[in-house]
Amino acid sequence: MNKIEQVAVVGGTHGNEFSGIYLLKKWQKSPELLARESLNIETVFANPKAFEENKRYIDCDLNRQFTVDSLANNELANYEQSRAKAINAQLGPKGDAKSDFIIDLHNTTSNMGPTLILLKSDNFNKKMGAYVLQKMPEAVVVFEDQVSMEEHYFLASIASQGVIVEIGPQPQSVIRQDVLDWMETMTQTILDFVELYNNDALTELPARYDAYTYVESLKLPEDETGNRIGMVHKNVQDNDFKPLTKGDPIFKLFDGGEITYQGDYEAYPHFINEAAYYDNNLAMSLGKKITVELTE
Amino acid sequence: MNKIEQVAVVGGTHGNEFSGIYLLKKWQKSPELLARESLNIETVFANPKAFEENKRYIDCDLNRQFTVDSLANNELANYEQSRAKAINAQLGPKGDAKSDFIIDLHNTTSNMGPTLILLKSDNFNKKMGAYVLQKMPEAVVVFEDQVSMEEHYFLASIASQGVIVEIGPQPQSVIRQDVLDWMETMTQTILDFVELYNNDALTELPARYDAYTYVESLKLPEDETGNRIGMVHKNVQDNDFKPLTKGDPIFKLFDGGEITYQGDYEAYPHFINEAAYYDNNLAMSLGKKITVELTE
Repeated sequence: MNKIEQVAVVGGTHGNEFSGIYLLKKWQKSPELLARESLNIETVFANPKAFEENKRYIDCDLNRQFTVDSLANNELANYEQSRAKAINAQLGPKGDAKSDFIIDLHNTTSNMGPTLILLKSDNFNKKMGAYVLQKMPEAVVVFEDQVSMEEHYFLASIASQGVIVEIGPQPQSVIRQDVLDWMETMTQTILDFVELYNNDALTELPARYDAYTYVESLKLPEDETGNRIGMVHKNVQDNDFKPLTKGDPIFKLFDGGEITYQGDYEAYPHFINEAAYYDNNLAMSLGKKITVELTE
Repeated sequence: MNKIEQVAVVGGTHGNEFSGIYLLKKWQKSPELLARESLNIETVFANPKAFEENKRYIDCDLNRQFTVDSLANNELANYEQSRAKAINAQLGPKGDAKSDFIIDLHNTTSNMGPTLILLKSDNFNKKMGAYVLQKMPEAVVVFEDQVSMEEHYFLASIASQGVIVEIGPQPQSVIRQDVLDWMETMTQTILDFVELYNNDALTELPARYDAYTYVESLKLPEDETGNRIGMVHKNVQDNDFKPLTKGDPIFKLFDGGEITYQGDYEAYPHFINEAAYYDNNLAMSLGKKITVELTE
């Protein structure tokens, strides 16, 4: 892999996830805080109109508009679909992008702590996960490598290397200092990693580490007409990345009943009760725990 | 004071505070869960359009529209101002209301636990606070009795007796089971109290208890042009009802600085970092601790 030269740090892809937006303001005022010798770093405020209106999005979720097909489809022309094409023109085009590496900054209402989401599992990303966990033992690494970068619909997939920094718990439209501090530390740690990578100066990475890989999403309980009839069980609430085994309660019905986990694998829930996922009636993502081995 | 006969249980005054809305659905399906011998109980979904749009409000905060003056002013005719007049026609009119008692159900993103907000400090309310604390030791009682019921702008002030049930922490647009359970328990406890009050059957209330009284609101730090330049300090975040004394850090500036509390009284912050208060750039409310004495 070539060296990383052009880096984009993106905030405000969702207008009510405030940490990235306020960090961008800070870094735009003091670019020396982000600067690294080997890197040319630009900052991008992805969805300013949604921020103005204090909403996740105006017309549709911006962070679902970046497949190669969607970007090429000029009939997709609402606000976020247009922003996606504008951002792709600025940082891309996807498949042959000006940006070598994108860091996209997000918040979640889920108790995920500082989570690094990696979109493919190549050596660069595996090493990044190792480095981030070494510097931030409280962090979690999730591989969302179930599809190729071309098929990924995330903004960070415009470049051939891209990551999502996902920090919670933070209510929508709030700034928490602990969450902001985690996001700042993780972003700086990632940039340190890229700088060391460019200089062939990465040393003493652990040979292996635990991480998670996305498997499936669970829906909130619905009746036959699509009405929501239950909620995330209090045993699961806030227990992101704590294992679920068959028979564990996962949903509490409003009428008092319970629904238990019936999967045949030890599942690691995350994005538990994320506010934004109610649009699609999603309750949580399930992952598997994996061991990542570094090879060289 | 006369007996309470007509009771209104109100949810969804703010469209993205979900606990009350889902409890109303449950109680509308199973009214026997709320029923009490001496009471005629109705349920009111205050702001259905805001719920549909998954927002606090459409045009303005519904729970600020209930002063006698605002209700009488027919030029105030946007969606929430109109809803206020419709609700006043249904439950009021304020000053001579059909409802004897209103329970208005709210959520906060702040870590306030189950909080009972009382709008005046008469014997009925003082006893209600004592009863609720006896049954729910984890609860907190706050008196917002700084103005008369006539001047109060809250929905619950339509009737001559009205309370706000305020439960958090819960992000906007999320249902947490723990928060829902607290709200259900507090509502049932309040109805139990009113039933016992009507039957002159209140016994063994404690002679005194600790509560809080509202003093003032603090703004988030701004520069001279009104831009937000700081956030709630992590030492204060989530520490609702923990005392602040002069010199304690309360705000962290984005540039790294700190602002400390400079008040001359021991302050008990609450509504700390409530998402909805960002509209007015408010950071928290400050209260004083008081001892409530029950008299007969």
